[in-house]
Amino acid sequence: MITGKNYIGNNQSAKGSKTYKTFNPLLNIENETVFTEATSDEINEAVVLASEAFRTFRTISGKKKAAFLNAIADEILALDDALIQTYCSETGLPEGRAKGERGRTIGQLRMFADLVTEGSWVEATIDTAQPERQPMPKSDIRKLLVPLGPVVVFGASNFPLAYSTAGGDTAAAFAAGCPVIVKSHPMHAGTGELVASAIVKAAQKTGMPNGVFSNLNSSGIEVGSQLVKHKGVKAVGFTGSIKGGRALYDLAAQREEPIPVFAEMGSINPVVMLPKALKNRNESLAKTYASSITLGTGQFCTNPGLLLGIKSEDLSEFIQNLSNEILKIEPSVMLHPNIIGAYENNKKKATSQPELNVVASYDAEVKTNYARQTITTVEGKTFLENPTLHQEVFGPYSIVVQCENAIQLEQIISKLEGQLTGTLIAEEDEAAQYPEVISALQNRVGRIIFNGVPTGVEVCPSMTHGGPYPASTDSRFTAVGIHSIKRWVRPFSYQDWPDELLPNELKNENPLRISRLVNNKQTTDKI
Amino acid sequence: MITGKNYIGNNQSAKGSKTYKTFNPLLNIENETVFTEATSDEINEAVVLASEAFRTFRTISGKKKAAFLNAIADEILALDDALIQTYCSETGLPEGRAKGERGRTIGQLRMFADLVTEGSWVEATIDTAQPERQPMPKSDIRKLLVPLGPVVVFGASNFPLAYSTAGGDTAAAFAAGCPVIVKSHPMHAGTGELVASAIVKAAQKTGMPNGVFSNLNSSGIEVGSQLVKHKGVKAVGFTGSIKGGRALYDLAAQREEPIPVFAEMGSINPVVMLPKALKNRNESLAKTYASSITLGTGQFCTNPGLLLGIKSEDLSEFIQNLSNEILKIEPSVMLHPNIIGAYENNKKKATSQPELNVVASYDAEVKTNYARQTITTVEGKTFLENPTLHQEVFGPYSIVVQCENAIQLEQIISKLEGQLTGTLIAEEDEAAQYPEVISALQNRVGRIIFNGVPTGVEVCPSMTHGGPYPASTDSRFTAVGIHSIKRWVRPFSYQDWPDELLPNELKNENPLRISRLVNNKQTTDKI
Repeated sequence: MITGKNYIGNNQSAKGSKTYKTFNPLLNIENETVFTEATSDEINEAVVLASEAFRTFRTISGKKKAAFLNAIADEILALDDALIQTYCSETGLPEGRAKGERGRTIGQLRMFADLVTEGSWVEATIDTAQPERQPMPKSDIRKLLVPLGPVVVFGASNFPLAYSTAGGDTAAAFAAGCPVIVKSHPMHAGTGELVASAIVKAAQKTGMPNGVFSNLNSSGIEVGSQLVKHKGVKAVGFTGSIKGGRALYDLAAQREEPIPVFAEMGSINPVVMLPKALKNRNESLAKTYASSITLGTGQFCTNPGLLLGIKSEDLSEFIQNLSNEILKIEPSVMLHPNIIGAYENNKKKATSQPELNVVASYDAEVKTNYARQTITTVEGKTFLENPTLHQEVFGPYSIVVQCENAIQLEQIISKLEGQLTGTLIAEEDEAAQYPEVISALQNRVGRIIFNGVPTGVEVCPSMTHGGPYPASTDSRFTAVGIHSIKRWVRPFSYQDWPDELLPNELKNENPLRISRLVNNKQTTDKI
Repeated sequence: MITGKNYIGNNQSAKGSKTYKTFNPLLNIENETVFTEATSDEINEAVVLASEAFRTFRTISGKKKAAFLNAIADEILALDDALIQTYCSETGLPEGRAKGERGRTIGQLRMFADLVTEGSWVEATIDTAQPERQPMPKSDIRKLLVPLGPVVVFGASNFPLAYSTAGGDTAAAFAAGCPVIVKSHPMHAGTGELVASAIVKAAQKTGMPNGVFSNLNSSGIEVGSQLVKHKGVKAVGFTGSIKGGRALYDLAAQREEPIPVFAEMGSINPVVMLPKALKNRNESLAKTYASSITLGTGQFCTNPGLLLGIKSEDLSEFIQNLSNEILKIEPSVMLHPNIIGAYENNKKKATSQPELNVVASYDAEVKTNYARQTITTVEGKTFLENPTLHQEVFGPYSIVVQCENAIQLEQIISKLEGQLTGTLIAEEDEAAQYPEVISALQNRVGRIIFNGVPTGVEVCPSMTHGGPYPASTDSRFTAVGIHSIKRWVRPFSYQDWPDELLPNELKNENPLRISRLVNNKQTTDKI
């Protein structure tokens, strides 16, 4: 049952007076539960508890952390229909999507459980002593990755499960040994509370310290600001808008003790279409991209918002085909009136720019909160000179830029802000003829795709979900996959430390049988 | 020959009118060469050249980068006596230290050459396609680490070779594939220019693009500020004071596109002395620490500035022994009048705090620019309550804190700012009795030492030289050892990319024979 209360550690609490409700965009009505925003005292209590919990949580074994992570997955599954129904009522997204996203969320939790059970992720590095070395003896030094401390997680509106309460940021932080305080997303506060209840149950069942997790309701910016500024908080994970992410980054950088913020933010995910591919696959490309642009009502951070080609008859034909195809697609509902409002505003701002042509715009009547897909086109020169056209229009919108030639294409790519993804549409034998274009694209993105669509972020070790600013606030990390744990850990070295006092990962006997770099050789052997 | 000019890429340039000289603290006179500060135009030119150079430098092979790094080492050695003499005249440090530091610098360059020759450092991670997977086929995704772009390096006053022009930051950045612009340290501008000439020669001999390296003279803050704010600069490395490092961090965070700053800053390197060890090894500890505190006139970032013990007769005896021992040591010269000036000021500020006792202070006449070593002591309660006493006094100064009991000891440790190192002096059987003390210490530092001294930072893979703020601006990285390369790289993924267009590190054949994580298995096999 959803209570509308916060979780301060294992206890439910609602001391505040500020309340709010979530919204069902399909029915265009508010949902019933009244959520009580966390008070300043409650926020402080959550952080103090997290700091206390960190004292023990940071050194518990990988196996115990795995038990916790797997228990969270089990408890989320046990929420069953209640979770799926709440998810749908708070997003307007279909049941299939809810279940798919739940599967992904469960999968991520179990992936991190496997990672910490195996244990080699700590990158144990050992250089044994050389007491006879001249002119100075060499000490025994051993390094491993250790957790940073309490992490605050801000979930995304568009992924209420996989990038929210028990999403990738939270799973990675728990795996690292960091307590988590979630600033609950106001648009899916009920889904968030249900997932939070699953985490709390899992923590209690597996004997985790109280405070390892808290879930704070919030409908404005105050709760998040207070959290990020709190001395006890040591890192921040965020998925959302550039404006929101940057505000948190600035707050964290201005602290007396600055802390790392990994914010995954906006992206227009440029798609570069080379001439031969456009000639050979014009219609199928138009179909594929009409579908990718409107997938999930365009509410993906990897939505292709920018298509780049070199002027030609084939490009004109593609624009025509794309326009035809996208108008065949039935409009769908967006997550929230605020999101459709922002979509309409941003689209209006984009389409009112000089020398921009709207080539396809769904005109028929649609239900409230449904988004009308739109395709625009512009000359390369105009696009180069007008940064407004580079801004993300979150929703089923895309702009096709018609470049004069390959040089202008490369110029445009080089001028783009950082992006999560870049896509190259090309015949195999033609890609090699555009090394500068490819090189420019690589330099602006975190992931580059050949002949595919950017939507769909596979959860696997080789994934980079991040990229140069503003795709993320720190391109040196990924938000998805096992390596996302590196956001929440730091290297720590022991010098001449007695073997029996070392953590198991670094002991001579290698009791965990993990892979370690010992005197420059990767091995699972004992010393 | 030292010209006093800047290197803008391979060309020497001195268009400015602002000049300065370096200083010989031993002779207490200015050195002869007149250095010309880089102008705004020269700074811009250096960054534009670096951005151009990055276009090719970022993808050259590991072998070519290794040839460049080894050539730098060779050219530094070829500078021979000229370098050693300049170093000594600009620092007052003895020839043995100059040669030792040169050895370390050469060693670091060759270590990174070996790293990039071997090649596995890119952490190649491959997940092959599963076209038959249900409900969706899985793409082929491959990841590696790629360089960020031009890096600005600010060297340290106290290590004119190993942490300056061609020091660890520069070597790691070149190894990563990042061009480097050095903001030359004004106290050793001649040493810096000589090393810069070696880098430029090496770049030319090994065919590196012009702009892969520049060296800019600067005596104030303007050159550094302009560099950090420049759009073309993608990361910053700094070694020095908290004030300087924080100023750069703030500038970088305020940019439209924020960039990472790794600043290694102040540290007082707490040493915790447990009772039994103090009883058993009182005199030898006093000798060892008198020597560590005065090593290099206390001008190490790992200098032990804080000794913590529990009140006892043994602790009183240790304070007496330490006082006796430290007064036996001959005072030595500091790097620069500004540095001795700061030492005297900071010492005065510390010793004028209420309830602080000066227990040893070298009183005899000393030569100009020589530092008088000082030991003070204070009660635990006083130390806890007065943050001024927690501040670094850079030089041969240390404070001994007499705690009431183990609980107060732990409280004090927990209240400390982040530190590069923490040291535990203990008998093997007594350490296990103080888990909270050790745990608190671990949580505040980057490296923890058992029965040693913090001075001396071994260059090896297991080293962490960094720590929680303000020891560094980002505890997730180390400034020393092969893993310091991670500061300058980001993960980058290819999805369904044609094998022949992939970088060698990711090709099916694994032509470089590097170790890769392929479908979750670490291997050097081909696919």
